[in-house]
Amino acid sequence: MPGTVTSVFLDACRRRPVPWTPVWFMRQAGRSLPEYRALRREGSILDVIRHPELAAEITLQPVRRYGVDAAILYSDIVAPVAAVGFGIDVVPGVGPVAEQPFTRPADLARLRELEPPEDLPWVAETVRLLVGELEVPLIGFAGAPFTVASYLVEGRPSRDHLRTKALMYEDPATWHALVDRLAAIAVASLQSQLEAGAAAVQVFDSWVGALDPDDYRRHVLPATARIFSALQDWGAPMILFGVGAGGLLDAFAETGADVIGVDWRVPLDVARARLGPAPALQGNLDPAVCAAGWEPTAAKARDVLDRVGGAPGHVFNLGHGVLPGTDPAVLERLVELVHEETRERGETGGPGVPGGTPA
Amino acid sequence: MPGTVTSVFLDACRRRPVPWTPVWFMRQAGRSLPEYRALRREGSILDVIRHPELAAEITLQPVRRYGVDAAILYSDIVAPVAAVGFGIDVVPGVGPVAEQPFTRPADLARLRELEPPEDLPWVAETVRLLVGELEVPLIGFAGAPFTVASYLVEGRPSRDHLRTKALMYEDPATWHALVDRLAAIAVASLQSQLEAGAAAVQVFDSWVGALDPDDYRRHVLPATARIFSALQDWGAPMILFGVGAGGLLDAFAETGADVIGVDWRVPLDVARARLGPAPALQGNLDPAVCAAGWEPTAAKARDVLDRVGGAPGHVFNLGHGVLPGTDPAVLERLVELVHEETRERGETGGPGVPGGTPA
Repeated sequence: MPGTVTSVFLDACRRRPVPWTPVWFMRQAGRSLPEYRALRREGSILDVIRHPELAAEITLQPVRRYGVDAAILYSDIVAPVAAVGFGIDVVPGVGPVAEQPFTRPADLARLRELEPPEDLPWVAETVRLLVGELEVPLIGFAGAPFTVASYLVEGRPSRDHLRTKALMYEDPATWHALVDRLAAIAVASLQSQLEAGAAAVQVFDSWVGALDPDDYRRHVLPATARIFSALQDWGAPMILFGVGAGGLLDAFAETGADVIGVDWRVPLDVARARLGPAPALQGNLDPAVCAAGWEPTAAKARDVLDRVGGAPGHVFNLGHGVLPGTDPAVLERLVELVHEETRERGETGGPGVPGGTPA
Repeated sequence: MPGTVTSVFLDACRRRPVPWTPVWFMRQAGRSLPEYRALRREGSILDVIRHPELAAEITLQPVRRYGVDAAILYSDIVAPVAAVGFGIDVVPGVGPVAEQPFTRPADLARLRELEPPEDLPWVAETVRLLVGELEVPLIGFAGAPFTVASYLVEGRPSRDHLRTKALMYEDPATWHALVDRLAAIAVASLQSQLEAGAAAVQVFDSWVGALDPDDYRRHVLPATARIFSALQDWGAPMILFGVGAGGLLDAFAETGADVIGVDWRVPLDVARARLGPAPALQGNLDPAVCAAGWEPTAAKARDVLDRVGGAPGHVFNLGHGVLPGTDPAVLERLVELVHEETRERGETGGPGVPGGTPA
C-alpha cells in the first residue's frame, strides 16, 4: 500500500534523519547497461512497455547491479498521451515524434481524459510485478504539462521551443486548456501508479528551463501545482525536476512538490540558501562527469556531499539522466561512495544523521 | 581611434547617464533579413568574410533598417582558429565542424599564435570600411576560450559537451594549455579589431552555461579574465555573454568584463540584485518572443525596461541571437519602443536618465 513502505529514500524525501544518504539515478535503466542492451527489443519504448515482465525486468536491472535505494518505473513521459490516442511515438535515436503536432484549439479533442488502468493496463501490471519483487521503493513518474506540451506542439524534440512559446503567447486560452488537460492526464496516470504500489512520484519538467520565471509562474506553475495538490493525500513523496531550471527554483518550491531536483548548474548549498529548509533536494552530479571516468566522479560526488554537509533532506542523484556511454562500473562505485561516506558521517555523529538501521 | 567615439551605447556600457536606452541585437545581421538573403553567397561564412565590402555591407544592413545604437562585425567566432590552420569550417545549417577534432596534447601544435592583420587581413579591412561609414560604434568580437575549445574538441556543435568536459577533467594540463592558447588568439584578434577602429568588444562564451560554477572558476575563468586584462588599457567597453549561464553570473563579474550579457532566464532586477551596482547589464528579451510576433514582444520589452527601472548601465538586447524566422518588422518596432519609452522616462525625469542630446 502506498505510504506504508519505510525506507531510507522515502525518509530523506521527508527530510527525516537517515542512516546514509540514499541514491538513485535518473535513466538508471537503459542503454548504459549491457544487460539492458541484451534484453531490449528493437523499436519504440512504447511497444516495449506493453510487456509488463520485460518492463519490470528492465526496471530491476539497475537495482540489482548498483544497489540503488530506489527503482524508477521503465516507461516514457509520452505514454499517457499516446494511450489516449493523440498520435505520438518515441522514435529510437530521435525522441517523441508526433506526425500531426498540436496547432489549434480543435486539437484539444485529441486529448481526452486518461482512464487507467484500462488505457494503460500494462503500466499498472508492471508496477504490481515490481512491488512484489523490490526491497526498495518504486518511483512512479509522469511528464509535466510544459514538457509534454512541448513535444505535442513541436512535433519532435526542439532546442528553442519556438512553437510552444508562440502558442503560449499568442493563444493563452488554448495554451491553458492544453496544460490543464495534460495535468489531468498526469494526475490520472500517477494515481494509477500509486494505486498499484508506487511509493513516490517524480514529475519531469525537463525542458521548462527554457522559460523565464514570470512566464513559468503565469503559464505553467498553476497546472503543475494542480498535479501535486491532487496527489497530496496519498502521502507519497512528490519530486519535481527540470534541467537548466536554476532560475525557476523559487517557483518550483511554490508548486507543492516535496522534493526539488536540481541540476549541476546550481550547487546544492546555493539551492538550499535560496530555498530555505524545505523542500528536500535531489541531485546533482553532472552526468558528463560520470562519463569522464571514476576519478572526476569521486571528486565531484564528494563535493556534492560536502555542500549538503549531512543536513537532512538530500537524495543523491545525477543532475540529469545517465548518459548512454557511461561505464556502469563508475555508477556502481558511485553508489558505494555515497553510502560509505555518509554512513561514516552518521557513525561519527555528523549533523542530522543519527545512526539507524538499514531498511 | 578607440576610446574617442562617444555614443549612447558606449555611455550605457560605462554606466553613465544616457538620453535613451541603447539597443542592438545579437545576430542582427543575418538570415532574418531579406536584404541579407538577397546578398549572401552560398557556402561558408568563413569564405564570405574574406570579402570586406560584402562583410561590411552585411554588417550595415541591420543598422540601416533598425536604427540600432551599435553595429556588430559580421564574422564568426571560429575565424581566428581557422586562420591559424586548425582545420575547421562553418557548415551552413550545421555550425563549426572540425574534420580532425582536438584530442591530445600534440594538437596544441595546430594552434599557433594568431598574427593579425596578416592572418586575417580581411577582418581589419572590413572594420576600417565600417568605421568610415558608421555613425554608431562598431562592436568587435571573439569567441571565449571554453566555447571555441568545445568546437575544437567536439568537432561539431554538441548538446552535452561530453568530450570537452572529459578533456577538462582527465587532462587538466592540456586543457589549460588549450584555453590559454585560445585566450591569446582571442586577444590578438580583438586587438587588431580595436586597432582598426572597433569601439567595444564582446566575448561570446555561448555554451559555458553547461558548467557548474566551481568548474567555471577553476577551468575557464582564469583564461577568460586574461582576455579582459590584456585589453583593459584600450578603454573600450568589454562585454561577456553566455546562454543559460545564470548560475555563473557572479563568476562572470570576476572576469573583469565591463558589461555582462544576461539571457532571459534571469530577470534583470534579479541579476542586478545578485551583482550589485557594477557591471553594466545587457539583455534580455527572449528571442522566441520576438519570433512569436509584436504583441508579446512589446509586453515583454516593457517588462525588461520596468525591471531596469531607468537605472544607468543597461544596454537593451535579446537574451540570445535573433532567430532566423523572426519578422524584421517586429525588431524595427522594438527598437522604436525601447527608444521612445526610455526617452520619455528621461524627459519626465526618471531615475538616472537626465535629458541629453542624441549622439
